[in-house]
Formats: sequence, structure tokens, C-alpha cells
Amino acid sequence: MAEPKDKIVLGIDPGTQILGFGVIHLSGRRCTYVDMGVVNLKNEKDHFVTLRKITKEVTALIEKHKPDEMAIEAPFYGKNAQVMLKLGRAQGAAISAALMRDIPIFEYSPRTVKLAVTGSGAASKEQVAVLVQRLLGIDMPQEYADATDALAISLCHCYNRESPDGKYSRNSSWESFVKNNPQKIIR
Amino acid sequence: MAEPKDKIVLGIDPGTQILGFGVIHLSGRRCTYVDMGVVNLKNEKDHFVTLRKITKEVTALIEKHKPDEMAIEAPFYGKNAQVMLKLGRAQGAAISAALMRDIPIFEYSPRTVKLAVTGSGAASKEQVAVLVQRLLGIDMPQEYADATDALAISLCHCYNRESPDGKYSRNSSWESFVKNNPQKIIR
Repeated sequence: MAEPKDKIVLGIDPGTQILGFGVIHLSGRRCTYVDMGVVNLKNEKDHFVTLRKITKEVTALIEKHKPDEMAIEAPFYGKNAQVMLKLGRAQGAAISAALMRDIPIFEYSPRTVKLAVTGSGAASKEQVAVLVQRLLGIDMPQEYADATDALAISLCHCYNRESPDGKYSRNSSWESFVKNNPQKIIR
Repeated sequence: MAEPKDKIVLGIDPGTQILGFGVIHLSGRRCTYVDMGVVNLKNEKDHFVTLRKITKEVTALIEKHKPDEMAIEAPFYGKNAQVMLKLGRAQGAAISAALMRDIPIFEYSPRTVKLAVTGSGAASKEQVAVLVQRLLGIDMPQEYADATDALAISLCHCYNRESPDGKYSRNSSWESFVKNNPQKIIR
């Protein structure tokens, strides 16, 4: 099997309180740390101002790092309906920023992320943090703790990118498939 | 009191199955129908393709009609957490398209919308449909039935936008309804 091309992967963990992000360079099977960060949304009193900030921050990250792919976590459990609607809006704002630029998006359940990074789908937050630092060879300053999940999502994508739990890719529409695969069109 | 400037209002009812939209021209206190439509999302098997379609459609509507303001419904009840997450993502994608262009967004609860259009917060879907057509002087073809709520949201915003609540989110009270709808009060 041919080795995949180098990829820049942007992992996003968009919540209503904190937006965490982690950028990884994937070369063959090797993952290298590029960037991480935390955007504090706690002081935004207005939900729409929060959504605007998420959209603008993700857009800025895309412009800065030019990711080939974006990875995001799909939370499937817990929380009440109203909380989930707000969380969904936050995710939708982040996803939309990537879709505006036709960046493929890959989605992983929390269990898949933990499994990929620690080998156990039931790993604790602390285990995930330890393994993320070990796998990337970095020391995570305390103030970046909320970026851990985003880096874990990026790592998970690097390991699982051929079998995501969900995805959007340019090939999802026939037009873009044709555009991206001219050799496959019989003329 | 000075009359407000003319405004184009885009009402959006973004679901995961159907995206309804309604465009209204507000001049002083007069609301005029401009456009409405329904985007069918039922055939999209992929959730991200749905979100992409929502983002692109709302962006196209914004480019076409150049709305001054966008109005959206905030569903606060029912449905399970997973459904709400998906609905939230759909809403987030639509909201994000407007936020990218810094278009102010106003949110109304279903009850506020019904109250504004029919005078009753507990009005039926049919009552809303009848009043929307009456208030705008239009006949709604059956195939546009799913645009009814979007037009109702636009109308609600036209009647309530002068209320002193916040710019992005506001909860209409009966007092502000009375204030903003003097023609509906039987004296």
C-alpha cells in the first residue's frame, strides 16, 4: 500500500465554555506536534457572540495552518437536551468554518479517541493526557490542559483516518469526485 | 419616535430534514413578502453533507437578498439529547454563515413567534399558516408549507425588533407585543 501524503490535521474540541485545538503534522505514519491552544469562551455572556468567536477562531486557524483535514469529537451521551442544542450549535459553527473551505471533516466518538490514544476505550482523562504528551514527545503546560482532547482527536485521526466514525470529504458529492478524479472519467 | 430604516429580514428554520427560509422587506411598520423556499435535506445520507448544504444555501441566500438581519427560532423543548445535538449543529451551520458576514441574528422562542403572528402563544400550526398568509397577503402553495415557520419567524422579528431586549437574543413579553403591535389591540 502506498504511504499517504503528508497531511496537516486540525483537531477541534468545540464546547460552549472552551474551544480547544491541536494541530499535528502527519508524515507517513509519523505524527509531529505543530500547535495547540485554548480559546476561553466563559466570559461571553451572549451565546451568539460565542458562536461568532468560534467561527472566527476556527477560520483564523484554518488560514494559519492550512489543514488538509479536520477532526472533531462526536459526543453521544449524557447532558440534557438544552445543553446538547447549545453544544451542537458550537460544533456546527466550527464545522461550518471548515466546510466553507471544503476541508474534509472526520468525526470520532469519545470512546474511539480514548481507544486510539491509550489502547482502552474507558481510559481516564489523566491517562489520555499522559499518552498524548508521550506520543507527541511534548510537555503540556497546565494552561493548555483543555487542548489535550483536541490533540487526542488529532492523534486519533492520524491513526484511524481510513476508518472514521463519520466523515465529510470532497468526494461526498459527484461534482467534486469528478473534479478530484479526472483520470477516472471515461471520455 | 423615528421610523426605522427599511430592512431586509431573513428568517431561517434550519432542521436536519428541511431548511425553510422566508425573506421579508420591512419598511416602517409595513412588512412585504419578498421570497420563501424550502431546501430538502432528507436525501442527504451524510450529516456533514447536510451541514455543508445548509452553510452553502444560507450563504447563497445572504448573497442574493443581502439581509440586514437574520431571525431564527430557538427550540427549547422536547426531543432527546442526540436529536438536539444534530439540530444544534444544523442551526450552528446556518448561524455561522450569517456570523461570517457579521449579520445580526435574533432568536425567538416558538411561543414568541406564535404570539407575535397570531396573538396566542399556544396557536396551532394551521393558525400560524393562515395568519402568515393573511399578514403578508400571499397564497402559500402546498409545496412551500415548510417555509411557513421561517416566514412566521421573519414576521415575528419585524414586530418585535424594537423591543429593548438584547441585540442577539431577546425574549418578548406581552408588554412589548402590545407596544409593537398596536394594530392588533382591540380597543
